[in-house]
Amino acid sequence: MSRRIQVGVLGATGAVGQRFCQLLEAHPWFEVGAVTASERSAGKYYKDAVDWRLSTPLPDNIGGLRVIPTRSDEMPKDVQLVFSSLPADIAERVEADYARDGFGVSSNAASYRMFDDVPLLIPEVNKDHAKLIQIQREQRGWDGFIVTNPNCSTIMLVMTLKPLMQLGLTDVKVATMQAVSGAGYTGVSSMAILDNVVPYIGGEEEKMQIETPKILGAFDGTKVINASITVSAICNRVPVIDGHTESVWVDVDASPEEVKLAMASLPPLKGLPSSPERPIIVREEDDRPQPRLDRDVYDGMSVSVGRVRRDVVKGIKYTLMGHNTVRGAAGASILNAEMLAAEGFLK
Amino acid sequence: MSRRIQVGVLGATGAVGQRFCQLLEAHPWFEVGAVTASERSAGKYYKDAVDWRLSTPLPDNIGGLRVIPTRSDEMPKDVQLVFSSLPADIAERVEADYARDGFGVSSNAASYRMFDDVPLLIPEVNKDHAKLIQIQREQRGWDGFIVTNPNCSTIMLVMTLKPLMQLGLTDVKVATMQAVSGAGYTGVSSMAILDNVVPYIGGEEEKMQIETPKILGAFDGTKVINASITVSAICNRVPVIDGHTESVWVDVDASPEEVKLAMASLPPLKGLPSSPERPIIVREEDDRPQPRLDRDVYDGMSVSVGRVRRDVVKGIKYTLMGHNTVRGAAGASILNAEMLAAEGFLK
Amino acid sequence: MSRRIQVGVLGATGAVGQRFCQLLEAHPWFEVGAVTASERSAGKYYKDAVDWRLSTPLPDNIGGLRVIPTRSDEMPKDVQLVFSSLPADIAERVEADYARDGFGVSSNAASYRMFDDVPLLIPEVNKDHAKLIQIQREQRGWDGFIVTNPNCSTIMLVMTLKPLMQLGLTDVKVATMQAVSGAGYTGVSSMAILDNVVPYIGGEEEKMQIETPKILGAFDGTKVINASITVSAICNRVPVIDGHTESVWVDVDASPEEVKLAMASLPPLKGLPSSPERPIIVREEDDRPQPRLDRDVYDGMSVSVGRVRRDVVKGIKYTLMGHNTVRGAAGASILNAEMLAAEGFLK
Amino acid sequence: MSRRIQVGVLGATGAVGQRFCQLLEAHPWFEVGAVTASERSAGKYYKDAVDWRLSTPLPDNIGGLRVIPTRSDEMPKDVQLVFSSLPADIAERVEADYARDGFGVSSNAASYRMFDDVPLLIPEVNKDHAKLIQIQREQRGWDGFIVTNPNCSTIMLVMTLKPLMQLGLTDVKVATMQAVSGAGYTGVSSMAILDNVVPYIGGEEEKMQIETPKILGAFDGTKVINASITVSAICNRVPVIDGHTESVWVDVDASPEEVKLAMASLPPLKGLPSSPERPIIVREEDDRPQPRLDRDVYDGMSVSVGRVRRDVVKGIKYTLMGHNTVRGAAGASILNAEMLAAEGFLK
Repeated sequence: MSRRIQVGVLGATGAVGQRFCQLLEAHPWFEVGAVTASERSAGKYYKDAVDWRLSTPLPDNIGGLRVIPTRSDEMPKDVQLVFSSLPADIAERVEADYARDGFGVSSNAASYRMFDDVPLLIPEVNKDHAKLIQIQREQRGWDGFIVTNPNCSTIMLVMTLKPLMQLGLTDVKVATMQAVSGAGYTGVSSMAILDNVVPYIGGEEEKMQIETPKILGAFDGTKVINASITVSAICNRVPVIDGHTESVWVDVDASPEEVKLAMASLPPLKGLPSSPERPIIVREEDDRPQPRLDRDVYDGMSVSVGRVRRDVVKGIKYTLMGHNTVRGAAGASILNAEMLAAEGFLK
Repeated sequence: MSRRIQVGVLGATGAVGQRFCQLLEAHPWFEVGAVTASERSAGKYYKDAVDWRLSTPLPDNIGGLRVIPTRSDEMPKDVQLVFSSLPADIAERVEADYARDGFGVSSNAASYRMFDDVPLLIPEVNKDHAKLIQIQREQRGWDGFIVTNPNCSTIMLVMTLKPLMQLGLTDVKVATMQAVSGAGYTGVSSMAILDNVVPYIGGEEEKMQIETPKILGAFDGTKVINASITVSAICNRVPVIDGHTESVWVDVDASPEEVKLAMASLPPLKGLPSSPERPIIVREEDDRPQPRLDRDVYDGMSVSVGRVRRDVVKGIKYTLMGHNTVRGAAGASILNAEMLAAEGFLK
Repeated sequence: MSRRIQVGVLGATGAVGQRFCQLLEAHPWFEVGAVTASERSAGKYYKDAVDWRLSTPLPDNIGGLRVIPTRSDEMPKDVQLVFSSLPADIAERVEADYARDGFGVSSNAASYRMFDDVPLLIPEVNKDHAKLIQIQREQRGWDGFIVTNPNCSTIMLVMTLKPLMQLGLTDVKVATMQAVSGAGYTGVSSMAILDNVVPYIGGEEEKMQIETPKILGAFDGTKVINASITVSAICNRVPVIDGHTESVWVDVDASPEEVKLAMASLPPLKGLPSSPERPIIVREEDDRPQPRLDRDVYDGMSVSVGRVRRDVVKGIKYTLMGHNTVRGAAGASILNAEMLAAEGFLK
Repeated sequence: MSRRIQVGVLGATGAVGQRFCQLLEAHPWFEVGAVTASERSAGKYYKDAVDWRLSTPLPDNIGGLRVIPTRSDEMPKDVQLVFSSLPADIAERVEADYARDGFGVSSNAASYRMFDDVPLLIPEVNKDHAKLIQIQREQRGWDGFIVTNPNCSTIMLVMTLKPLMQLGLTDVKVATMQAVSGAGYTGVSSMAILDNVVPYIGGEEEKMQIETPKILGAFDGTKVINASITVSAICNRVPVIDGHTESVWVDVDASPEEVKLAMASLPPLKGLPSSPERPIIVREEDDRPQPRLDRDVYDGMSVSVGRVRRDVVKGIKYTLMGHNTVRGAAGASILNAEMLAAEGFLK
């Protein structure tokens, strides 16, 4: 019998689902014991059901699993936690089923992020919000639970904002330049994006604007009180495979040096396998960060920041970049699960 | 003998120089009578000296001209105006030579833009600034003159800001996503930009920030009084051939409908050959403007605006896009020259 | 009443359908009197049914047409000819319905290309094959008819091979580098092709290999006798929007100069509105043709050839490039229809 | 004192030079003891002299080395072998200096490849050619020696041809689609290649055509007798960062199954640190290999082959892909050096 914690991956054949399998292949704590997909794929070996599109080989151990349908009653009972990258339209019902039936759910889907009793977690930022799990269980009568990670472009932004809270942060403006992988394998057609910019990503700006104050909010023992900051986002799609870049203005009363020091000092979570040694890398070169050069630093789990400088009148402007399907999606869910395991939320 | 005004193109073999030749090929008012380049190319036919890189054929009439050196004493005397796309490091000295020797200079170079006695012109925005020419001639003792057009990303921005001045505009934040053609043929290597974003363009942010208040300033009969607005820019390079896209926040007390109406109502300059029928096209689709689809509207001389909407607290945000080497460079200089001709500045 | 020939566009909202509408907007002979699409779009104005993705504006006159379903009994009777860019799976049945009901069908679909009684036409190459129409009508009892144009990559290749037939052409090897627009708007995802080459296009190699001998075959009064040449193709997809490039080896007993002269001498079809003045442009530069620079020459209807040179042992190698959705699709169908109109096949 | 063999990297700041440093960072046998560059960089720390453009961090140990000029008299005497990625125009003179002065030179430059007494090595293909070193030393009076690796697109091709020699290979036609990194950081401008294909790479076709018969030739104890095969190449540049793809036709009397078996059976060089476990990966999917997905397999040292199938009349066609700056350049030179070390050529 395996000593590792058995986990499942819901929607394992999709773009983020494949990332989960890639990142979990040799995970020291978690072992993928089940993969789910649509009824059409059920019964096939994962290696036959998936159109593997990552540049590392399909993990042998996971490739040999039989795909099961995405239904909680099909999930083996020795699985303690499932990772979800289900489409928003089915995640709400399905994730609740798993939570009700006793599974922990670490979800990358948007459905539950804004519920008062659901933690919207970035371990380096607000791990105390995980205590909402107790309230969630009581209110909903679930044996399991649901925790969520923020939207990809929100995660990276918030990691850089957290250290600025102590510097009086009030107002944030951000223009994003997002990679096509954020929309899944078929989300952005090549005709749409080659030699082009698309100045719109449905729902993205709203997510950045409403998720940020919750994540940066204070947990008072029973609920999260949103942070008093305003975020205004303009989201764009650019012809980049992986890595979201963001141009950011922040209203803070601090010098560039103080901002850089605060960011570089955001502490990592010691002892978690996926926690990067340095959550935020502050760079001094004029022309960094860049997605192609910096997205894989610390295995894609760090956020790179550069061009930190005074704004023309007051405040600071800077550029950030992070790997949207690692730190911004699958890696985020896995880091959340590691933190929950370390803190005793998985029994 | 030609009835058209004879013009010269300085630095005609470069990226913007080629655009000048393309746009002037069949110009109803101007005829290219001289093309200049470095000493190395002098004496060759233009068609042999240039590595023509536009998707329309090299103009036959210009291809047969002999390249002359970029020196004012080599310029034929029947030429009344020269277009300059010289590199900044040589433009200052060379353009002054031409102006001193009696030529009008319509320059796309940055060297003279910020001098008090040099108009920084966008005809639809501040054509009265052309009256600085008289002061310039008096102060400098020139027979000719120099007028300039703004930096490419500034032009597009300012065209959309002009209509907002009457709506109480005070503060502008803008993040750009700029095409590679803005850096010339060899300016951005493919290794630098494929599957990538470069969050830095040397000097670009400063140009947007200092040029904008001058362009929007008021001419009081002797000088331009800068507009009281602040502009903060973050400039990025993206893998797009032509067309700069800009995400913009403006502090105005107006509704989106008022802003759209004001922009769409910016009047064209009647009777100028290169003046677009509609200087600003306001689009209602969620996902426009886009550089590949919209850069060639009205032959590249219009600026397209979309996603005009309320910002989260106050103000408005929107997206603009324009053709950087047409409206943002060669076309801008030509439109300036047309306006000067129509207003009698070329004798 | 209009004096122009009334035509319909089947599948008018698709990628090639939009090209048809763009190219027919101001056609001197043809007027678009009807546009069809799926039942879902029927009844809407074309401008509301289509997600217009070309860089010229949606034609006003066509935008105001009501979309009708793609059924021959819905097509107005004053329409003489319909252009089809229907998907292969429905084209076979639907095109036959139109032909049976008296409409001429100029089809870009693959379904009928290889039938013995259906002309596979490139006007500059084999316009006498149009006489198959008479045989087709007799055999099938149709009042109308179907003519087809070849696959996009075949058209360009065959135009360059035709002049080589008189130079003893026997064997052809061709490696293609095809643009993403050949697969329609959603055919190639950006995740699949950014920073990548896909060495496979389903069915494409077979089309090039079997269509070519038919097109270059001789019509003996009753049937086409295939040309005695072999074609071997390897087809690749590259990150290019429009324009297929092909690396070609041909077994001919001729010098490069003879080959270039023969190609450059392929005569245009005088008097047809879409016929390019020069069907093949032979270039002498080392590094041409290139899709981005050469695809729009003669409005996209010419094929550009370059690098014609001796192969290492015998034969010739060269590179060709043509616009795949103009010369290779919609423009090809329109040129066929023009030829049929000029030759009296539309009564 | 280090137990590893001391090596130097000539031209260490260039694109291939950086790859050498990256691949040698933690090499078990070799330690980078010296890096050279132009006089302008001499004296600086490598980390200050280089504009590091790889997506892994600059190696700490190499970053702290002082750059020395590219002159053999400046090279520390404990260095046994130098890797050269010098430009062709200076490599001929400089590499000879190092060889004369007792250094082994493992060169990626083209200058010496075709000399009769210089091995043109691919260890899996012709490692016995290394015996030319003895003849080279005698003829030239050198204490050191020069070995070369082939041109990037040649290496990958020849690795797949080697197993076909026993199947009667006579004739090869190959069309390449090459990545921009093959031209160095500034070699291909973004204006040249975005949304484009360039059907020309200076000198590339000739290299593939003349190098191949030498590499596949037999060493008879004193010289290499070229293999009796003809190679005809057409070389194209495509918008891909890393990874050359090649469409290949070969005249062999063998079935696809025999060809695949022969290729997959090309034995690796046991015991060499950079030798991939499987030099050639044969894939069965229709649409592989692809540069973005397959270039990093076995750390970029394997060549991937797919679409092996019968040609229309006779022979076989297939597609191959390999990492051009790893297997095709720096990794090739390093593998050569490892083989030489293992075979006792470094004393």
